[in-house]
Amino acid sequence: MARKRRKRWHPPGTPPGTLSSHPEADKAPVRIALFRYDADNFEERALPPDEIASLSVPESGVLWLDISGLSDPGVVRAVGEQFHFHPLGLEDVLNVPQRSKVERFEGHLLIVLREVRHPEPPEQVSLFLGDRLVVSFQERPGDSFDPVRERLRQAKGQIRAQGADFLAYALCDAVIDAFFPTLEKLGDAVEELEEKVIASPSPERFHEIRRAKQRLLEVRRAVWPARDAMNELLREESPLIRPETRPYLRDCYDHTVQLMDMVETFREFAAGLVDEYMSSVSNRMNEIMKVLTVMATIFIPLTFIAGVYGMNFDTKASPYNMPELGWRYGYPAVLLVMAAAAGGMLAYFHRKKWF
Amino acid sequence: MARKRRKRWHPPGTPPGTLSSHPEADKAPVRIALFRYDADNFEERALPPDEIASLSVPESGVLWLDISGLSDPGVVRAVGEQFHFHPLGLEDVLNVPQRSKVERFEGHLLIVLREVRHPEPPEQVSLFLGDRLVVSFQERPGDSFDPVRERLRQAKGQIRAQGADFLAYALCDAVIDAFFPTLEKLGDAVEELEEKVIASPSPERFHEIRRAKQRLLEVRRAVWPARDAMNELLREESPLIRPETRPYLRDCYDHTVQLMDMVETFREFAAGLVDEYMSSVSNRMNEIMKVLTVMATIFIPLTFIAGVYGMNFDTKASPYNMPELGWRYGYPAVLLVMAAAAGGMLAYFHRKKWF
Amino acid sequence: MARKRRKRWHPPGTPPGTLSSHPEADKAPVRIALFRYDADNFEERALPPDEIASLSVPESGVLWLDISGLSDPGVVRAVGEQFHFHPLGLEDVLNVPQRSKVERFEGHLLIVLREVRHPEPPEQVSLFLGDRLVVSFQERPGDSFDPVRERLRQAKGQIRAQGADFLAYALCDAVIDAFFPTLEKLGDAVEELEEKVIASPSPERFHEIRRAKQRLLEVRRAVWPARDAMNELLREESPLIRPETRPYLRDCYDHTVQLMDMVETFREFAAGLVDEYMSSVSNRMNEIMKVLTVMATIFIPLTFIAGVYGMNFDTKASPYNMPELGWRYGYPAVLLVMAAAAGGMLAYFHRKKWF
Amino acid sequence: MARKRRKRWHPPGTPPGTLSSHPEADKAPVRIALFRYDADNFEERALPPDEIASLSVPESGVLWLDISGLSDPGVVRAVGEQFHFHPLGLEDVLNVPQRSKVERFEGHLLIVLREVRHPEPPEQVSLFLGDRLVVSFQERPGDSFDPVRERLRQAKGQIRAQGADFLAYALCDAVIDAFFPTLEKLGDAVEELEEKVIASPSPERFHEIRRAKQRLLEVRRAVWPARDAMNELLREESPLIRPETRPYLRDCYDHTVQLMDMVETFREFAAGLVDEYMSSVSNRMNEIMKVLTVMATIFIPLTFIAGVYGMNFDTKASPYNMPELGWRYGYPAVLLVMAAAAGGMLAYFHRKKWF
Amino acid sequence: MARKRRKRWHPPGTPPGTLSSHPEADKAPVRIALFRYDADNFEERALPPDEIASLSVPESGVLWLDISGLSDPGVVRAVGEQFHFHPLGLEDVLNVPQRSKVERFEGHLLIVLREVRHPEPPEQVSLFLGDRLVVSFQERPGDSFDPVRERLRQAKGQIRAQGADFLAYALCDAVIDAFFPTLEKLGDAVEELEEKVIASPSPERFHEIRRAKQRLLEVRRAVWPARDAMNELLREESPLIRPETRPYLRDCYDHTVQLMDMVETFREFAAGLVDEYMSSVSNRMNEIMKVLTVMATIFIPLTFIAGVYGMNFDTKASPYNMPELGWRYGYPAVLLVMAAAAGGMLAYFHRKKWF
Repeated sequence: MARKRRKRWHPPGTPPGTLSSHPEADKAPVRIALFRYDADNFEERALPPDEIASLSVPESGVLWLDISGLSDPGVVRAVGEQFHFHPLGLEDVLNVPQRSKVERFEGHLLIVLREVRHPEPPEQVSLFLGDRLVVSFQERPGDSFDPVRERLRQAKGQIRAQGADFLAYALCDAVIDAFFPTLEKLGDAVEELEEKVIASPSPERFHEIRRAKQRLLEVRRAVWPARDAMNELLREESPLIRPETRPYLRDCYDHTVQLMDMVETFREFAAGLVDEYMSSVSNRMNEIMKVLTVMATIFIPLTFIAGVYGMNFDTKASPYNMPELGWRYGYPAVLLVMAAAAGGMLAYFHRKKWF
Repeated sequence: MARKRRKRWHPPGTPPGTLSSHPEADKAPVRIALFRYDADNFEERALPPDEIASLSVPESGVLWLDISGLSDPGVVRAVGEQFHFHPLGLEDVLNVPQRSKVERFEGHLLIVLREVRHPEPPEQVSLFLGDRLVVSFQERPGDSFDPVRERLRQAKGQIRAQGADFLAYALCDAVIDAFFPTLEKLGDAVEELEEKVIASPSPERFHEIRRAKQRLLEVRRAVWPARDAMNELLREESPLIRPETRPYLRDCYDHTVQLMDMVETFREFAAGLVDEYMSSVSNRMNEIMKVLTVMATIFIPLTFIAGVYGMNFDTKASPYNMPELGWRYGYPAVLLVMAAAAGGMLAYFHRKKWF
Repeated sequence: MARKRRKRWHPPGTPPGTLSSHPEADKAPVRIALFRYDADNFEERALPPDEIASLSVPESGVLWLDISGLSDPGVVRAVGEQFHFHPLGLEDVLNVPQRSKVERFEGHLLIVLREVRHPEPPEQVSLFLGDRLVVSFQERPGDSFDPVRERLRQAKGQIRAQGADFLAYALCDAVIDAFFPTLEKLGDAVEELEEKVIASPSPERFHEIRRAKQRLLEVRRAVWPARDAMNELLREESPLIRPETRPYLRDCYDHTVQLMDMVETFREFAAGLVDEYMSSVSNRMNEIMKVLTVMATIFIPLTFIAGVYGMNFDTKASPYNMPELGWRYGYPAVLLVMAAAAGGMLAYFHRKKWF
Repeated sequence: MARKRRKRWHPPGTPPGTLSSHPEADKAPVRIALFRYDADNFEERALPPDEIASLSVPESGVLWLDISGLSDPGVVRAVGEQFHFHPLGLEDVLNVPQRSKVERFEGHLLIVLREVRHPEPPEQVSLFLGDRLVVSFQERPGDSFDPVRERLRQAKGQIRAQGADFLAYALCDAVIDAFFPTLEKLGDAVEELEEKVIASPSPERFHEIRRAKQRLLEVRRAVWPARDAMNELLREESPLIRPETRPYLRDCYDHTVQLMDMVETFREFAAGLVDEYMSSVSNRMNEIMKVLTVMATIFIPLTFIAGVYGMNFDTKASPYNMPELGWRYGYPAVLLVMAAAAGGMLAYFHRKKWF
Repeated sequence: MARKRRKRWHPPGTPPGTLSSHPEADKAPVRIALFRYDADNFEERALPPDEIASLSVPESGVLWLDISGLSDPGVVRAVGEQFHFHPLGLEDVLNVPQRSKVERFEGHLLIVLREVRHPEPPEQVSLFLGDRLVVSFQERPGDSFDPVRERLRQAKGQIRAQGADFLAYALCDAVIDAFFPTLEKLGDAVEELEEKVIASPSPERFHEIRRAKQRLLEVRRAVWPARDAMNELLREESPLIRPETRPYLRDCYDHTVQLMDMVETFREFAAGLVDEYMSSVSNRMNEIMKVLTVMATIFIPLTFIAGVYGMNFDTKASPYNMPELGWRYGYPAVLLVMAAAAGGMLAYFHRKKWF
């Protein structure tokens, strides 16, 4: 929870299919781009919202409405009415954040994906796939669709020769591929943490490990349902998805599996870091205790001996009272005894491999 | 177990279908509201219990008996007899708390859900769905059905144009949506705990973490079976649920999945707090030990030196006996040696980065 | 393993279907009660073992042989021969303890359940369900079947009007319902432990927590397979189980699910207690270390100062030798310095919130 | 890994179906016993290896080749050729250790089981089941098959009246039942460890717990695939397994489930012992720290007081210099102060319940 | 992450089926070996890349293109065009590392496996299996295929008499069998660590344990999907895989299961080592604390006594002032008291079994 959770905002009991903007939603203005293409023709232009009502699905080729910004529920409603999208699907578009999923409605599919690109806040991408029709919604005018737009413009690859399902695949693929650089960065950060933890296991390090684990968890929570959604899409029996597109969806599904693999590897690594941290901390404690024990154990007996010869028994009152004090070599002898005691202690600790 | 668990009360061996009130049940009086509506007509009135026996299912439209309070088993029995509900279903209504579930009986379905709205105690909501008939039971006159009642009165949304299954969906949806604010509050509480734990890892904090984990577990135990119940309802092949209602049930199911996602996120966060707490505690221990070790290690040797020159060897008895005591710069020299020893120690600790 | 595990006793290689009594089995004498009833008639009497061979299944109604005590394998063999039960089924009756299970044989089913009623040792209940026939075996003359016998005698509920499958259900239900009071008691014990752990985290407490966890595990190991067995019974396609009995079996299955829920809740609570204990222990350690550190850190420097002015440098031999000793306010000054040092330390610890 | 792991020995790239002896294999000589029987006849004799080539499956009854010792691959090859066993199956016989499994080949099944009987090393048992034919391979002439041989000789039970599938069942059952005494011994050992751990939590105890856990894991790794194998055998649709044998296989499968149950119970117990050990260790640490803290806290202030009155301020130089030294009751007063301080400390510790 | 992770390199949005070399890929030059054989004939030769376009699948027997080195995407493209492989399949060949998997395309299968042979870096092996055709790609000219080549040359085993599916099996088997020596080495390393940990639980040891765990995890992550791939291949219903090859694939699958078993055993062992390490560390701490406590507890009271008799109360000023100092046996008596106190302490510690 490094960043503020966004709250659901529809109060309990709101009628289903209610379309309104999330109060915490990005205030990015709505922009609509229209793409109409087939193998031979290509048209791209900005679409004013009031032209939505006069749009129609082309007889051949593909119509793509590329909409960014969710601040105007009216646009979503207009699109929904024009193409007969289910009100619950439209509600999911506006009521961010949703889990990644595929919804089957009559005559169209809704694909919801969650895009996570650190350090930007996560964003929801919603795609309606109809016959010869794709309508995509993004929260902000993002750049993950840019390569797809470019491929369309330049007729790069086979994208213009394929149908709406291939376009939907290409958009999903772009969203999912955008996870890779984010994850790589997280992985690098976790690996750098290892050296820091070994060098100085301070509580700040522990906190950083936890933050990294939380960020990995966030990615995991986004990738896991995306994998399920891709798998569902892959097995979808709707005629909207042609057999020749399936290998591409399978490829996209494979990417989500690879992402899960990476996330799990990093998570295991981070969990190992916690152990490393704990072990470092108890090792430091051992070091501290050793220093204390060595110092105390060496000097406490010596101080005792010094204390004994600091007693004030009256040597004149009785020959038994500390006669050592009057001996010729009393003082050097005591010093020798002290040195011997200290040396013995040191030898003992050395044998115990305490230093 | 922040609050008292409610015990099952039917003693082992009670015949199945026995209808009696839970001795620990809310003593809230039974109130029955009757709603009868179709797309064009709407009737709402309070129903005295003795009129139950003369009720009948309308030929068109929907009859909703909205009953709150379980203190009178007679009402439950009367309703059951009038509409031929299965005795085991009726027993489940009275024998709270049940796990959330869907039960299939001949001609009707029973949907049991658990409502958790902190800080109120959890409550069981039971719905019988028959042909053109919904009978709902709540433990207390709660407010989670209020928006549905309001929508019915105001013919808001499509609710009056739809059938009994849509009403049942709307009631389930209201119960499930009521989890969201509760969960948000729990999540906020857990996040606030983090700062407290870092500031002062006292045992009280640990206790609070555990309480939060227990409350999250309680929500989880309520949501998990609710998810299963919604999934079952979604896949129910009974003619009581029309195809056009299924997308709505699917939406409701999606909400339970989102709830589980939130619960799990908060639980992971709380588990991380336990680690943070433990790490803070051992860090504090390290700090304490460092202070002790630094103080002891610096002063113990100095005290020893002072002790040596506090010995009473007779300097007159022999020139070997502590001649330093009579030196001109003996005292300053000893003070210097002491200062050097302390300085060396401090340098050693500084190099070890102990402070 | 608070109580002695019972060992399997058939040595490896024993031919299957060998019928002999467990050497550690209860020596309770065999008692056979015969119940024969239909909706209108009811007969109950003790049956001498030698009359088994002349028994026959009634043409209508139900015959229930209610046998307690496994000390005489001859009785089991005789029953098995009379009603053509499978030898492996008969072996399971005698070779206690078995896991709860349902076995399908030709013409009859065997239901094995494990009854756990603290503080009594667990007991195995085995039921053969045939056409118009139930034969039940208990290890000891227990009381969990008593309510069923009573309902039969008093024709309470619908039990006499129903078939053998309903009787089998009623017996299973009685065994499973007997888990509830046991579990409630365990739950109460675990909750009481919490207060004790917080008050004094002694090793005895830890031991008690572990004992409670083991007892919960024991219940879990009994309930888990019972749930599977009930589920299997519910899905059993044998004509021995009539459709109208299935809702009752489903109800019984629901009880096992509720039991699992309770067990898991208590187990989580007990696991939390272990954490609480561990946290209490390290908190106590911190407290102890703080006391030591505060005392040592305050007095060690003071003792050092006292030691310095206890040195015997000859003040007459040189003006540099401890001239403080002859100062007019030397002693009060030293006392003041000591007080200031101690006060500084206390302020430092106070700022660190050590007390 | 209390005992040496046996390594796989076929180097990577060896052609499949290569038959050669494991270099670390037991050098036990190959012994072949031939059993040929039906309900009425019985023949048992040792078979010289060169007679294998002239063997044939009897027209009625069962032929069992009971082979122990794997030191001669030629025998395995000869048997394989004579009865047309698949080369991969034969390789599995020699290439020990394999996981327990059931392999389906044309016209025959291969059942591989792992026998664990402490303190002997584990052994692989391989059974080929064909039509009227069983060929069993053991690594050493072991005794787990002895009861089956005896039952055959004495026509005890129904074994001679049944087919080859029943013999295969009886052999599997013998191998699986041999786990019970081994597990009981392990369970006893673990339970004895508990008392030792509580009495003295030395590192040796910890090591013993880990050894026990490893041994339990070894059993688990042997039982788990055996359970799967038995389940597969149970569901096997081959005509080689007759319907009347299935209840026996189900019984055998039940035994593997019981074994898993026992293993898990012991494993949980052992895991609890680790907690108990850790808790004992930190409790001991607490005890040690308490003793140190009590002693140090009581005597450090007293020593300080003594140190103060050991200072050599010149009482003659000023009336402010330690006038207490000349008081009439100075010494007794100081002793009293000391006693009071010590008593206060003791009272404080007593109130804290430190002893 | 002992070694550098290789990053995915296709930037997000790259069109599917883009063929280009990984910038971090091995720069090993491309080498193509052609094998063409049937039961009677055998041809092996190096193939210059420009001859790819003139290749054709033989009418009988098998064509194997054995390609090592991925530095030239042109070769991959040429092979793909010649044999009509799917562009996504070709992309997977170049875009290393992929997870192990089986991809179904029209008329051909793609098998991707990951080879892990310490200390070499992991390598990806890709196999296209068509009708009478196998094309294999390796990253480096490795030796795991050598035994297969040798078997082909020497017509060893049945490999030349079998089809392309058997060749594909043989190559998969070679890759999977290469895991065994690697895992054995890892297992030996982990077992050796145990002795080191018990002898001296230094932080370096802990680090080594973690490294071993990471390496085991790496193997696990390679074996797990390989197991799934083999299982999928086994269940593949394509006519490309003949029924007689299935037992061999099943054998290969069994090897992956055995590998998983070994990995899990070693992982459990390594996890046990962490516990052992932690237990050793806290045991050492206990030892250190015991030494400190014994020394301090014995000498602190003695030093106090010595301090008392070092006080300078004026014995002449009052008979109550330390008259002991003038007693005849004062000094010996004090020494005796000290010896008695020390002896009592030692006896106390001995009784507590501290040494």
